[in-house]
Amino acid sequence: MSAFLAAVRREPVPHTPVWFMRQAGRSLPEYRKIRAGTGMLESCRTPDLVTEITLQPVRRYGVDAAIFFSDIVVPVAAVGVPIDIKAGVGPVLDEPVRTAADVAAIRDLTPEDVPYITEAVRQLVGELGDTPLIGFAGAPFTLASYLVEGGPSRSYTNTKALMYGAPDIWHALCAKLAGIARVFLEVQIAAGARTVQLFDSWAGALSEADYRRYAMPHSAAVLDGLTVPRIHFGVGTGHMLEAIAEAGADVVGVDWRTPLDVASARLGAGYAVQGNLDSIVPFAPVEVIEREVRRVLAEGAKAPGHVFNLGHGVMPDTDPDALKRIVDLVHEN
Amino acid sequence: MSAFLAAVRREPVPHTPVWFMRQAGRSLPEYRKIRAGTGMLESCRTPDLVTEITLQPVRRYGVDAAIFFSDIVVPVAAVGVPIDIKAGVGPVLDEPVRTAADVAAIRDLTPEDVPYITEAVRQLVGELGDTPLIGFAGAPFTLASYLVEGGPSRSYTNTKALMYGAPDIWHALCAKLAGIARVFLEVQIAAGARTVQLFDSWAGALSEADYRRYAMPHSAAVLDGLTVPRIHFGVGTGHMLEAIAEAGADVVGVDWRTPLDVASARLGAGYAVQGNLDSIVPFAPVEVIEREVRRVLAEGAKAPGHVFNLGHGVMPDTDPDALKRIVDLVHEN
Repeated sequence: MSAFLAAVRREPVPHTPVWFMRQAGRSLPEYRKIRAGTGMLESCRTPDLVTEITLQPVRRYGVDAAIFFSDIVVPVAAVGVPIDIKAGVGPVLDEPVRTAADVAAIRDLTPEDVPYITEAVRQLVGELGDTPLIGFAGAPFTLASYLVEGGPSRSYTNTKALMYGAPDIWHALCAKLAGIARVFLEVQIAAGARTVQLFDSWAGALSEADYRRYAMPHSAAVLDGLTVPRIHFGVGTGHMLEAIAEAGADVVGVDWRTPLDVASARLGAGYAVQGNLDSIVPFAPVEVIEREVRRVLAEGAKAPGHVFNLGHGVMPDTDPDALKRIVDLVHEN
Repeated sequence: MSAFLAAVRREPVPHTPVWFMRQAGRSLPEYRKIRAGTGMLESCRTPDLVTEITLQPVRRYGVDAAIFFSDIVVPVAAVGVPIDIKAGVGPVLDEPVRTAADVAAIRDLTPEDVPYITEAVRQLVGELGDTPLIGFAGAPFTLASYLVEGGPSRSYTNTKALMYGAPDIWHALCAKLAGIARVFLEVQIAAGARTVQLFDSWAGALSEADYRRYAMPHSAAVLDGLTVPRIHFGVGTGHMLEAIAEAGADVVGVDWRTPLDVASARLGAGYAVQGNLDSIVPFAPVEVIEREVRRVLAEGAKAPGHVFNLGHGVMPDTDPDALKRIVDLVHEN
């Protein structure tokens, strides 16, 4: 039995399972080597590359789960939205999506649009053996923020202005993106993903009232009734963890600001928790790493299910040896 | 009696007072005109400019308080740290501060270092008449983050790595910056500022435990025993408002994520509250502006003192007419 799947289901575990958001990526020299000369979107569409990149951290660290290597804009690009990923910047579009016509022009995703995802997941599941694969998708709000801003943002001015000023267009856009994200996850589940994580990376930019009004129904449409356990995470969502849970989660991911025992006390017995180690802790001396890992383990032990993770993604210049030490510490405890 | 000073002291008010963080600045055409061709730091060192810029929003909007126009790095530059403010970027240093020698090289601030601040405040207080002036300073953590990163950051990697990895250097740096911020506020108070606001803009990047360990003692050293009421604010500090209050506040500023009634219920009878209107609401249609202003007023009415404000600074491309409408709405209610 996988420790990860047990924790996700709030069942007894042989040891606390651990994986890291962005464990597959720039912090690994073997990743930088294999990605050299290949663009991000092209990499995500190449099953052999996706398989190798997803496996790299599993091999190196012995983590308890693999996270499907992809990008949140992959399914959006697959339906023809002219979006690209600029190295060091993130997703960018020349023409932001802001009108009813812009939204209507986005078509639905079908499994036939992403044969490379099915192929990559099948291949991966074969290679992974007993290690479960976590499927990956971006949530409607976060996807919409990239489409409406035309790129990453600090203030989400255009996104919120559309939300407040043209709620019909906003909801039509998010409903479309919810359908796309849903199919993207279903494709991964059909091919063998054992759980999924919905990344609503920037949902924390909203107040709880705005989240419930403008974002949550669309995330619920992605998550509701999926046939595998669901992890739901957004940075800076500590002020509305209950809403993140209610949107449809089995595991609520929390960032480095919300201790796991605090999160779990608020969420109650029906949810496992994941996260909280500050992504900068791996840069600290070993005593600090040990102190913080022990703290997260002790706080997580109070929850009905605990998946050890960072409170955000692995920073690109993280020392892989520090992550390896953390995995070993978690497994020894 | 000033409605603003009454609210800050949790006394009965004739109407709810309102001002806006960054009300003096780029959103005003008269500001862009007067600043044309003058660098930010140079502007902050020119009393006539500071006076005019600080007065502009008071004249235009009829807000209940003026906020001293300055920048958090002004006192740091005044002791010779080679920091500049790059338009569209923020504070930048060629050589970040990261070693014990770097910290030791920063000298203390004396009132004689900033005669232009004394002069500007005196002149302003004369012009403002009954409208109180809020003194302005940046908190040690936020100042330190600029010095350690060498500029703005999203992840505070170097800042947290120094905090965790070399706490002695970190605390020495913050103690130095606390002394500088303290003197900077005392100079403004001596010249006539009737309240102060300490901006710990990026403190929300810390967990409460880290804030209490690494930042709060230094903010307390700035705020403790000042002779005027103190407003204390940081974006994204909803997870640790109690600590922001305990650091030494009469008014706790909250961002758009924490409703004022929720904040006040947590803080109790000893604190007034300020903030919460999303800075993007001024971009919304008038119905949404009215709905949100009424919501904030209703929630703020449950606190023992309420200063109406945004949950963050005014966005540079905000329509001044929308802010004027908000001031009028607040005053009519």
